[in-house]
Formats: sequence, C-alpha cells, structure tokens
Amino acid sequence: MKKYSLDSAKVATSTRDWLKKRGVENEAIAALVLDMQTSYYPGLTIEECLENVDRVLSKREVQNAILTGIQLDMLAEQGKLEGPLQEMILNDEGLYGCDEILALSIVNVYGSIGLTNFGYLDKVKPGIIGKLNEKGGPMIHTFLDDIVGAIAASAASRIAHRKQEKAEALGAPQAGPEDGPGV
Amino acid sequence: MKKYSLDSAKVATSTRDWLKKRGVENEAIAALVLDMQTSYYPGLTIEECLENVDRVLSKREVQNAILTGIQLDMLAEQGKLEGPLQEMILNDEGLYGCDEILALSIVNVYGSIGLTNFGYLDKVKPGIIGKLNEKGGPMIHTFLDDIVGAIAASAASRIAHRKQEKAEALGAPQAGPEDGPGV
Amino acid sequence: MKKYSLDSAKVATSTRDWLKKRGVENEAIAALVLDMQTSYYPGLTIEECLENVDRVLSKREVQNAILTGIQLDMLAEQGKLEGPLQEMILNDEGLYGCDEILALSIVNVYGSIGLTNFGYLDKVKPGIIGKLNEKGGPMIHTFLDDIVGAIAASAASRIAHRKQEKAEALGAPQAGPEDGPGV
Amino acid sequence: MKKYSLDSAKVATSTRDWLKKRGVENEAIAALVLDMQTSYYPGLTIEECLENVDRVLSKREVQNAILTGIQLDMLAEQGKLEGPLQEMILNDEGLYGCDEILALSIVNVYGSIGLTNFGYLDKVKPGIIGKLNEKGGPMIHTFLDDIVGAIAASAASRIAHRKQEKAEALGAPQAGPEDGPGV
Repeated sequence: MKKYSLDSAKVATSTRDWLKKRGVENEAIAALVLDMQTSYYPGLTIEECLENVDRVLSKREVQNAILTGIQLDMLAEQGKLEGPLQEMILNDEGLYGCDEILALSIVNVYGSIGLTNFGYLDKVKPGIIGKLNEKGGPMIHTFLDDIVGAIAASAASRIAHRKQEKAEALGAPQAGPEDGPGV
Repeated sequence: MKKYSLDSAKVATSTRDWLKKRGVENEAIAALVLDMQTSYYPGLTIEECLENVDRVLSKREVQNAILTGIQLDMLAEQGKLEGPLQEMILNDEGLYGCDEILALSIVNVYGSIGLTNFGYLDKVKPGIIGKLNEKGGPMIHTFLDDIVGAIAASAASRIAHRKQEKAEALGAPQAGPEDGPGV
Repeated sequence: MKKYSLDSAKVATSTRDWLKKRGVENEAIAALVLDMQTSYYPGLTIEECLENVDRVLSKREVQNAILTGIQLDMLAEQGKLEGPLQEMILNDEGLYGCDEILALSIVNVYGSIGLTNFGYLDKVKPGIIGKLNEKGGPMIHTFLDDIVGAIAASAASRIAHRKQEKAEALGAPQAGPEDGPGV
Repeated sequence: MKKYSLDSAKVATSTRDWLKKRGVENEAIAALVLDMQTSYYPGLTIEECLENVDRVLSKREVQNAILTGIQLDMLAEQGKLEGPLQEMILNDEGLYGCDEILALSIVNVYGSIGLTNFGYLDKVKPGIIGKLNEKGGPMIHTFLDDIVGAIAASAASRIAHRKQEKAEALGAPQAGPEDGPGV
C-alpha cells in the first residue's frame, strides 16, 4: 500500500474544480465583493476583487471547508447520508447549523471584522447566493451558499486590510470610521 | 485580606444595571427580536421576546462579555486607555475586531444559527443599535452596539428552538425551511 | 411527497445510537470527565459526570456536530468520499482542521472555559480518545476522537458552573482560583 | 481637533513594547514552540521558531487581542475596573472566559489546527506561561498567559504549514499522520 502523503496542489485544484462544477464562478463571488465594497472604495475594480477572492481560495483552511461542505451537499443530493442528517441537509433545516460553522472557519482566517458582512450576505442572499439558495432544482446547496458568503466576506476583509496598508504607505490619511470599509 | 469568592448574583445584577446606565433597555432589544422574527412566527409577542432576552442575559458567558465590553467603552470615553488602543476604540476603528469577537462569544452559546442575524443587525443597525452607533455624543459604544446585536440574535435563536419544541410537542408539523425562522 | 418536518426526538435518538455503534459509551466519556475534575471536586461521582454528559448530549448543536462528524468518518471508512478529501479524512491529515472546527462548536455552547480541557484531551488522548485514535483497525475516527473530547470538556464546564451555583446557594465560599475547577 | 486615522506601525510597535514591559520576550515564546514541535521536526531551530513568532505578531488581529488583553490586565492590577469585573480579572476567576475568547481569536487566524496546542499549553503551563500564572506578585496576567499560549500555538501551526510546503516543493514525501506535527 502506498504511503499517504498530502498533495497540497491537488487539494487546491480540487477546490477550484468543485466550485465550478457546483455552479460557482470566481467572478460571481467577486461581484458580491465589489457590490459590498464599492461605496467605501470608489475606485475598486472587479479585477481587484477577483484577485482577492483568488487569494482567499489559496488558503488551506478555506479549501478544507469548501471541500467538506460541497461533499456533504452532493451526498445529500444523492440520498447517501443516513437517518435524520440526510433530511436535515436535504431540506436546509434552520436548526442545523454546521453549514454556518464551516463558513465561520473561513471568515475567522481573516479576522472577526468579516463576521458582519458574512451575516449580511447570508440574510440578504444577493447574486449567486440567492441563486444557490433557490429550492426545487436538482442540486442541494445547504453548505455552499454559506461558504460562498464566507469567501466573499473574507475577500472584503482582505481588501480593507490592503487598502489601509496602501494608504499608510502613501502617507495619505485614510477615511475616518464613519465612512469606513463596512467590515 | 478577604478571600475572593465569586458572587454570581452580583455579576448578574451589575450586567443589568450597566446595560441600563448605558442607555439600553431590555425592551429595546426585545423590539429588535420581534422585528426580525415576527414574519416567521406571526403570533409572536413583545412579552415573549422580552422573556427570551431576559433568559439570554442570565447566562454567565453573556454577562462576562457585556461587562468587559461596556467597561472598555467607558474607559475609552474617559480617555483612560493607553496608546493606540485608546484611539482605536474611541474611533470605532474598522480594523479593530475585538468588539465582534466578544459579541461572537455571546452568539455561540446559542449555536451558530444566530450568526446570520447577528451579522445582519450589525450591518443594518436598526433601532437601538443605530442609536448607539451615532457618533458625536458624549458616549462611546464601540463594543456595546455589537453586544446588543448579539443579545438580540441569541434571543432569536432561542425562540426558534423553543417554537420547534412546542410545535413537536403538539404534534403539529412545523413550517418548512423556505419559510423558516430566519436564523 | 411528504412535506419535511424536523423530528427532534429522532435526531436525539440517532445521536445516542451512533455514538454507541461507533464504540463510544457515555460511561467512557464520563470517566474522562471524572478524571479531569476529581482533584477540583473531591466528592464528584461518576454518576454526576454521567448526568452531565447526558445533558450535553441533549443539546441540538451538539447532536448536529456529532451526526455530521460520524457520518464523515463512516463515509471515509467506506471509501465513498471524493478526491483528496477522502484521503485527508482517511489518514487524519494534520493540516485538515474541520474535525477541530466541529468539536469547537460543541465546546462553545458551554462557553470558552472548556477550550483548555478540550485542547488538553485532544493532545494527551486519555482513555476512550486514545482508543479511538489507534490506527490500523477497520474503523476511522478522524472526527469522533475530537468530538468525544469536546463532549467531555463541555460536561466539565457544565459541572464547574453547577458546583458554583450550589456553593453560592449554600452560602459557602467557593475555592479560590488557584485551586479552581481547571476549566 | 485632528482627524483620527489608523497608524498601523504604531499599533505594531506598541504590541511589541507592551509584551516586553509585561515580561514576555519573544525568545520565551519561541522556546515554547521549539519544545512542542522539536519531536516532529528534529532539525527545527530556535531561530526558525523566533521567526515564526515574529510573523504571528505582525498580524493585526493578533495585535488587537494582545493590546486589549494586556490593557485589561494592567487596569485590574491598578484597581481601575469596576464592580465584579475588577474582582473576576484580578482573581483570574475560572468562570470568566473572555481571556480564552481573545486568545481563541489569535489561534483562529492560523486555522483550527492550533486549538489543540493552545489548550494543552493553557493546561500544562510550561515555561513563561507558568511564570505569568504565578500568583502573589505585583502583576496580574489573567489575559496574558492565555495570549502567550495562543501566540505559541499559532507559531506552531504556521511552522506545520511551512514545513509541508517545503517538503512538497522538494518532492519529498512528508511524514505520515501517525508521526505528524502535533497540531
């Protein structure tokens, strides 16, 4: 038997492949980020958002949560989970919170300032999150809608940190807190 | 020197006193809860919301977070914190996240289903949260606005759990997930 | 098609059945609790520990985490997970942390004071945790060993809270912090 | 009045100054890391550990938690906190968990794999943690001992991630999980 050894490149590639296969393009996540942050950073471009989404997706903790969540969604879809767990995930049971827990583990990597945006996206369900959350289709996205919100919230946090760094490097005073980055 | 021993009644009483002194009546938190949950539970009353807020406030973890957060707000107000921490809390710095961290510790006691409502309240800032967040007055509420959102989100989670229990006890099928409790 | 509605009794029963089927008796968890707490509360009995384990297991958040973790262990065992996730869970990959994340969601319900005991149990792996963690058998317990540690740590937190309440009710001063409950 | 703007360099410098003033040298934290990880990575040097501690300390979330925790310790020491909070922090009350919460926010930045080492350090209290935890001296370190454990656990996580990257870059198979990095 071949000795196991972690292949990080494979984990990273699988994460990106699975997101696509489940109908989530990085561009759709970047659009959520741009929409949230554009009022705080008027010059923010979709390319910058895309670059930040990409960097979030390169973190191992993020990859682990994505692979685990999508796997559970797919198994529920195929009816392969057991007992009440199958029904809770299939039906996106409101009192089942492991989807929020995995999403939180993504947000935490970029610090607690992402919590607000995550909760907001999860409640309002704009763009791709709303699409994933539509019931009645063949696919189950109980975990994935929360995960996509967490990736977008994390990218927004990352942008807030970078913009601050850049402003300080330029010696330019940053905007005050009243008109802050909304994270 | 008198040996220290924890006086839980005093901790509980102080928590309630401090909330009031800082301008937060339980009724104002209950109003947030009612507003969030009334569409899911049409018969929900303000008395029920108040009772649930009260139960959240009786948890020690919640009391610890409230006392710690309000204490930091008051010290910032009085200019008694040191160095950059004083300025970050005084100005509700967007990249300072310890306020969200303490709030999260409140939400966690009632499970991850409260995260969404917490994030939403923290973003939209309805009712008392918006009032606490107004800048320019003599009081600093960098921690307290997040804490109040966390208490309201926790009370909403508690209601969702109780309503489910009651529905099952009655043998009545609960509403499906599409029209679920929004937690 | 029958409309879905959550059956809480079924979720609770499944949780207890699955733990047993995976080789974890409540008594084995209670033994961990007794071992951790007996030096702080000399009169503590195994029956009290068992009662507290039982109460932890009655919480829905705890049940959700247990069912989800055991399900992933069983699917890994049967080779039914896909791509690198299958290998990471099968081999208890050190850089895969979703097992710790689910366990943390259990601990959080009883407040952060359980974190220390959870981490300690996860490192030292006494009793049933060590048994679950043995490699080479037919069963995979990548999630379950962390989950059992989290249940034991939560029961220990619950005991610390109850003992304090009881001491205060009796008017007896509690032990000071130097010889505190180790949570 | 001068408009507030965040000065990140000042936050970073203050963090390092405060740690030193409170008796914590980076070398003492690095020694904890080396002691935990040396059996997994036999060639690990104190310089590498020090470099990883340094990188952990450069994260803003970590700086926020350190400044907030040390500030609360100092205020408790000076008797400047109010009511029962003063007594709980002064006496390192076992049922007060905000110290663990701030520490957890540090660990989370490096993913959940650090939880185990954090809990272990917090229980066993080796080296500088034990020294901080000694009662009877003029200084109060209710928050700082947890924070130091969290920094060490985070540095250990960071090392585990880096060692894996390096091993994969070299094409050398990593050690299997049985003899894994203990994170």
